[in-house]
Amino acid sequence: MSKIKKQTWRFNHPIYLAATGTAVGPLEARGPLSGSFDKEYEHLNCGEKTWAKSERALMRRAISFCLAKAGKAEGDIDLFLAGDLMDQSVTSNFIARENRIPFLGMFGACSTSMETLATSAQLVDSGFADHVLCAVSSHNATAERQFRYPTEYGGPTKLTQTFTVTGAGATLVTKEPGKVRVREATIGRVIDWGIDDASNLGTAMAPAAADTIWNHFQDTGRSPEDYDMIVTGDLSSVGSPILDEILLEKGLDITNVHQDCGTMVYTPDQPVNAGGSGCACSAVVTYGYLYNRLAEGSLRRVLVVATGALLNSSTPKEKETIPCIAHAVLLESAKEGQL
Amino acid sequence: MSKIKKQTWRFNHPIYLAATGTAVGPLEARGPLSGSFDKEYEHLNCGEKTWAKSERALMRRAISFCLAKAGKAEGDIDLFLAGDLMDQSVTSNFIARENRIPFLGMFGACSTSMETLATSAQLVDSGFADHVLCAVSSHNATAERQFRYPTEYGGPTKLTQTFTVTGAGATLVTKEPGKVRVREATIGRVIDWGIDDASNLGTAMAPAAADTIWNHFQDTGRSPEDYDMIVTGDLSSVGSPILDEILLEKGLDITNVHQDCGTMVYTPDQPVNAGGSGCACSAVVTYGYLYNRLAEGSLRRVLVVATGALLNSSTPKEKETIPCIAHAVLLESAKEGQL
Repeated sequence: MSKIKKQTWRFNHPIYLAATGTAVGPLEARGPLSGSFDKEYEHLNCGEKTWAKSERALMRRAISFCLAKAGKAEGDIDLFLAGDLMDQSVTSNFIARENRIPFLGMFGACSTSMETLATSAQLVDSGFADHVLCAVSSHNATAERQFRYPTEYGGPTKLTQTFTVTGAGATLVTKEPGKVRVREATIGRVIDWGIDDASNLGTAMAPAAADTIWNHFQDTGRSPEDYDMIVTGDLSSVGSPILDEILLEKGLDITNVHQDCGTMVYTPDQPVNAGGSGCACSAVVTYGYLYNRLAEGSLRRVLVVATGALLNSSTPKEKETIPCIAHAVLLESAKEGQL
Repeated sequence: MSKIKKQTWRFNHPIYLAATGTAVGPLEARGPLSGSFDKEYEHLNCGEKTWAKSERALMRRAISFCLAKAGKAEGDIDLFLAGDLMDQSVTSNFIARENRIPFLGMFGACSTSMETLATSAQLVDSGFADHVLCAVSSHNATAERQFRYPTEYGGPTKLTQTFTVTGAGATLVTKEPGKVRVREATIGRVIDWGIDDASNLGTAMAPAAADTIWNHFQDTGRSPEDYDMIVTGDLSSVGSPILDEILLEKGLDITNVHQDCGTMVYTPDQPVNAGGSGCACSAVVTYGYLYNRLAEGSLRRVLVVATGALLNSSTPKEKETIPCIAHAVLLESAKEGQL
């Protein structure tokens, strides 16, 4: 069976991450996960003349590390699945123009990291592709000016607000044995509990994360203790306790194993308010720190729940509330027996 | 084998369109394909107070016709794959918020129609979903103001410029026998021949369509005569002859069977300059007119090549050229033996 109950895919073959690649900006490089990234840029411009080009440099660099570590060239890859936060996902489009790999663009806001990984694993499992490259990116300067204010304003920010991670993550998905296995994926539904404050996306996204996590455990019959970690994408210090509380009210206690990439990637004294966000937030933590720990076997099983706020810059002006989604992927260390 | 050579998927099981649904605006309703659409709105506002809501009404209506004709409810559907032209694909996000079906957002600009259909067929074929709903939309007023000028300007337009189709198309993909079969899909690469004029997207997209069509015939070993029609998405009267010429130079003559949705959907006397474009252009022609003809058996095999220009409103200001893509899906009448 490829599908377990309603929302969860279980892959029929062992599917592996052949390698990963990550690139981050200077603030992330000074955070607690420093050293787990392949490239840490000293300047926010990443050596480029425009922010849009800086974001492309991040994705380009993450992919080149990933392919080099996997010992593959672009011509060895069947499909490229990518997305980002820029209008019409142009970072991904421009990178796809360079690598010339058959391309499926995806959009799930900050959940795109696990949306692309889940879909890639499914494509490899079913034999429609042997090697799928997936990548996402975000850049603080491109995202903040697009969704909020021109960065030069230096306007005040709310304490509930998150800070877009500057970075990119890439991975190569294949059946060839590697150190980390993709075991299952739970595809999320769009949930909206009526939050209309684009400066409080952690609160807006928490119910979507709760829905996906709840359905993952309903579909699989497992409990949080079966995993070493349940890692949400970018709920931040504001949204994370709300998620825990929603699930506790339903009788599911994830508090012992729950962490959030948005609070893992920065220290509390960094100027990021509620924590990190953006497509790159879950991607650089998953493909950097978590991948390394799964590969060495110090983590056995991690459920990565990437969260996305599916708004655009007009949504608040239209007095609309914010639709949110979360996609979960179960990663296992290849050193362990399969679940 | 699920994959034929480099870019083409051949589905292992018979995969069907259980039904389709289409909704269009007033200009499309007065075009030559009038009567092939399920809903033809008399006013561009589709009974809503904002253009953004009008576009949602189109997608909502197309989906409700599709599900009603298939005799399915939203709860019967495993996955919803959708995309549109609005920043961050918000039309699709808002519709996914209403239907609560597990959702994968996709972005391929106007190629999203066949990107979602190809991926849906692949998901059903491999058993990861039994019923996948896919939908795309575009609205003249939301697209023109976003990519070009506020529509109220009434500014002059170039003759090479296309006119965004107001409409939406939806289909339900399943293994349950229906009247039209999805046989193969060829996933496109991003191609950019250096066009930087956002008012001449037909010319920009022609090389991407040529690449996908060429690779489709390379992968399958067939020739254009094996198909009753090869229909491009929105190359328009400007891009279509360029496509034909590029392929003729490579020794492939599609001129006898090639038509373009952008010139099929309007009459030459309608004020649309080079023809129609937008995600809905290929979708309403394919899920309306072409579906009907395939279902009745008056067309046996049609290759739908949806074309997309992967730019955003900043791309021309950044002096960038326009990356383009095309995805092809082979549709067959169920009345005919399989190819």
